[in-house]
Amino acid sequence: MNSQELWKKYEEKMFIQSAYRLVLGTTSFDAETIAPHKGDAYRNERVAYLEGELFSLQTDPEFLALVEELSRRDDLSFQQKRIIKWQLTDMERFRYVPKDIFVEYARLSMESSQTWKKAKEAKDYSMFKPYLLKTIEMSKKLLEYRHSDLKGYDILLDDFEPGMTIEKYDAFFDLIKKEIVPLVAAVVKKEKIDDRFVYLNYPAEQQRKLTEKILDYMHYDRDAGVVAETEHPFSDALSKYDSRVTTHYYENNLMSSIFSIIHETGHATYNAQIRDDIAETYCFDNISSGMHESQSRLMENYLGRTRGFWVNLFDDVKELFPKQLENVDLEGFVRAANASFPSLIRTEADELTYPLHILIRYELEKAIFDGSVDVEKLDQLWADKYEEYLGVRPANDAEGILQDVHWSGGSFGYFPTYALGSGYAAQFMHAMAEDLDPEKCMEDNEFPKIKDWLREHIHQYGGLYSPAEIMVMATGEPFDPHYYVEYLKNKYSKLYEL
Amino acid sequence: MNSQELWKKYEEKMFIQSAYRLVLGTTSFDAETIAPHKGDAYRNERVAYLEGELFSLQTDPEFLALVEELSRRDDLSFQQKRIIKWQLTDMERFRYVPKDIFVEYARLSMESSQTWKKAKEAKDYSMFKPYLLKTIEMSKKLLEYRHSDLKGYDILLDDFEPGMTIEKYDAFFDLIKKEIVPLVAAVVKKEKIDDRFVYLNYPAEQQRKLTEKILDYMHYDRDAGVVAETEHPFSDALSKYDSRVTTHYYENNLMSSIFSIIHETGHATYNAQIRDDIAETYCFDNISSGMHESQSRLMENYLGRTRGFWVNLFDDVKELFPKQLENVDLEGFVRAANASFPSLIRTEADELTYPLHILIRYELEKAIFDGSVDVEKLDQLWADKYEEYLGVRPANDAEGILQDVHWSGGSFGYFPTYALGSGYAAQFMHAMAEDLDPEKCMEDNEFPKIKDWLREHIHQYGGLYSPAEIMVMATGEPFDPHYYVEYLKNKYSKLYEL
Repeated sequence: MNSQELWKKYEEKMFIQSAYRLVLGTTSFDAETIAPHKGDAYRNERVAYLEGELFSLQTDPEFLALVEELSRRDDLSFQQKRIIKWQLTDMERFRYVPKDIFVEYARLSMESSQTWKKAKEAKDYSMFKPYLLKTIEMSKKLLEYRHSDLKGYDILLDDFEPGMTIEKYDAFFDLIKKEIVPLVAAVVKKEKIDDRFVYLNYPAEQQRKLTEKILDYMHYDRDAGVVAETEHPFSDALSKYDSRVTTHYYENNLMSSIFSIIHETGHATYNAQIRDDIAETYCFDNISSGMHESQSRLMENYLGRTRGFWVNLFDDVKELFPKQLENVDLEGFVRAANASFPSLIRTEADELTYPLHILIRYELEKAIFDGSVDVEKLDQLWADKYEEYLGVRPANDAEGILQDVHWSGGSFGYFPTYALGSGYAAQFMHAMAEDLDPEKCMEDNEFPKIKDWLREHIHQYGGLYSPAEIMVMATGEPFDPHYYVEYLKNKYSKLYEL
Repeated sequence: MNSQELWKKYEEKMFIQSAYRLVLGTTSFDAETIAPHKGDAYRNERVAYLEGELFSLQTDPEFLALVEELSRRDDLSFQQKRIIKWQLTDMERFRYVPKDIFVEYARLSMESSQTWKKAKEAKDYSMFKPYLLKTIEMSKKLLEYRHSDLKGYDILLDDFEPGMTIEKYDAFFDLIKKEIVPLVAAVVKKEKIDDRFVYLNYPAEQQRKLTEKILDYMHYDRDAGVVAETEHPFSDALSKYDSRVTTHYYENNLMSSIFSIIHETGHATYNAQIRDDIAETYCFDNISSGMHESQSRLMENYLGRTRGFWVNLFDDVKELFPKQLENVDLEGFVRAANASFPSLIRTEADELTYPLHILIRYELEKAIFDGSVDVEKLDQLWADKYEEYLGVRPANDAEGILQDVHWSGGSFGYFPTYALGSGYAAQFMHAMAEDLDPEKCMEDNEFPKIKDWLREHIHQYGGLYSPAEIMVMATGEPFDPHYYVEYLKNKYSKLYEL
């Protein structure tokens, strides 16, 4: 069979896999947003079964042989070769795992996430602990079936961010520790920014209207995207033509939902701006976590927390909350959006202390996988590290180890990409500044110009290139975390007059 | 293999089919409620593929042989025998249809429904017409693959309501024509009930709160059910533990959403009250349309439009709309909820004129399938019949032939069950009255007592028994439409002092 005939066969098989992914993705979104919990057990069983069917398709020997055969063909286009390269890499994650273990893991992940949710509501880690320990055990067991050149936690780090290892993350976080920990300590000693207005009463109904304004401002295409409400904001993309972002409204916090929605829209924009000719290929799913996070952080922090972003929106905010913002002007609003103080909840953390929240999780994960920690005591270790790096200690499990969903679903190795993404974003912004002035664009109400730059230099490729390649293509040099550290130092030295 | 071993095999296969149904059902609900329309084409292709997979499972020769073998076994329990009986009947609908034709039909249905939606918005039948004609053609084509003892439209009628035929529906609708058409004409001549307050401004936000009150009042279990908003209200049940009801808020109509939500909750309650031991069997899906509709109509009309229903709710309604209802008391509210007048939109029609809306659709469907009508002119025929039976003529397609979704999805034979269900409900209410006084129950705030009666006599069985059997079991006699006609005559003679 000639290569293009083989390719057509490959595409047919991928279409089938994409059908399963679409309905399972939709069912998962439904479960996260609205499905009633009494249906959990019934749904879990059936979703686990179909995850198993998808797994069978992905590990079908005929399919594996087809991909391997294609990987040996020289007469494919560059694009086709790349797609096959990623597919082959990704297949290693599944192909040696027995199906029953995979299905057991899929079921455990669902049950564990659902239990985590209840445990968090009850602020009771003991409810969740057996699931967490089992999830850790299963995650370690899955590693035994990997045929990677890497070992242990390195495998997981590479899964979420190709090319990243403990060694490289250690270097990255050492720099954070060296430069940012003292910066946070210096800021703590300075006079606090007055952000008391942030914590007045902001009715959810009005916040919903603000969300619409922000989405309009960011030109989020409502004919190709959805916004919903969940306990934890997240984003998902069922296809290039179907983005999903969620947020959560706290009535005693104006900023929380604002920056959630800007963040998640950053993710959604990435998926929506992929090039048409690769939108229905493996490149759509192959975007690394760090790259994805760079685009959400870029929108949330590097754009969303600037004065420029709010020049054309602040009147709307005041109109929605006239009493609460009676004595607040644009400058005061933006200052409050950038106030830094040590806190307990990662998702609510400011831009400066944020990487320390990630540092804590990275150190714990590393220790879980090298066995240097007693997993029975993870909640205590969590609290200890918060005290060490941020000087605060959780008063209960909900603001401690129970705050994040990730571990319940077995996502170990994911957290570090959050800090890395912020690092990537700093370098992207530096490169963008050579072509346009983003604050000026926003002042001129030309947000699409910024989206165009991101599409041209980053988004259009989806996961066609590796993170390292995109970085060089978009910025002219390999990733250099000093852009990030310098950005934080400059910004916060000015803001707090250090 | 002994019968119980065979049965276990059958259950395993049914579990797999239920997994596909669950994710396809969830994806369909998502598409109806929130999915962005730019994702339609991508989703349609994939859903059609998986519908085909489910079709393959349902028509797998091994599965067919298994069911046939089970149907020959004498040592199954009564329940098992019944389940197999229904399964076998249902299989005839699919087993002789070529898969490619089935998939083509599934894809056409989705495209046709999506086009219908746009055409209705644009009030432009010409957009939808080619899809409707194609859907009619395909529906007729599918009939060629049926091996039923029945012919043509009778097959479709029997699909939706086992045992019903043109002959039986003709008799039913002849009675409606004889008794209800003159009653409607008599009511038109009387002084109108003052219901002007119904059409004041009722903000959707407040109506949403009223929906919550109504659901609480009806003891709708929010841990096993969802409420959402759609252009057309509907209900769905993904499992006994996961009901879905939707409604639509018109800000210039207080009653529309109220009776939609009561109606759909009637459907949801049926599915939620099925007996545990048959909740995950074929009996869950096997409830006939007429039986289902009897339970929604029972809640909407026979309970929801009585004074008793509102005794404990009316204060809440007034609190939500103090200005709009300033001069309305409980009696005036209930009278307005029962006002009858000829109108154009079926879903908004009052209880008395409602069966005439169905009569019109029944006559058109019958004519479509016996070929006595020029389908090119369906929109005109629709308008003519409205003029004939109700004395009103649609001013545009949206309030004429485009008003209902059913035909776009190929649901021919469904409409008549709506009137039949109202008929069933009258007889059920007559039987219920021998055991309890529903209005008194509601006045005493004991709605669950009514739900208990319905569970005991109807809901618990799901589709274990045929509609005719349930009717005899619950009421002691076969279906008799005179209960319905007498109910309408009594009620409206009193209300309008005829």
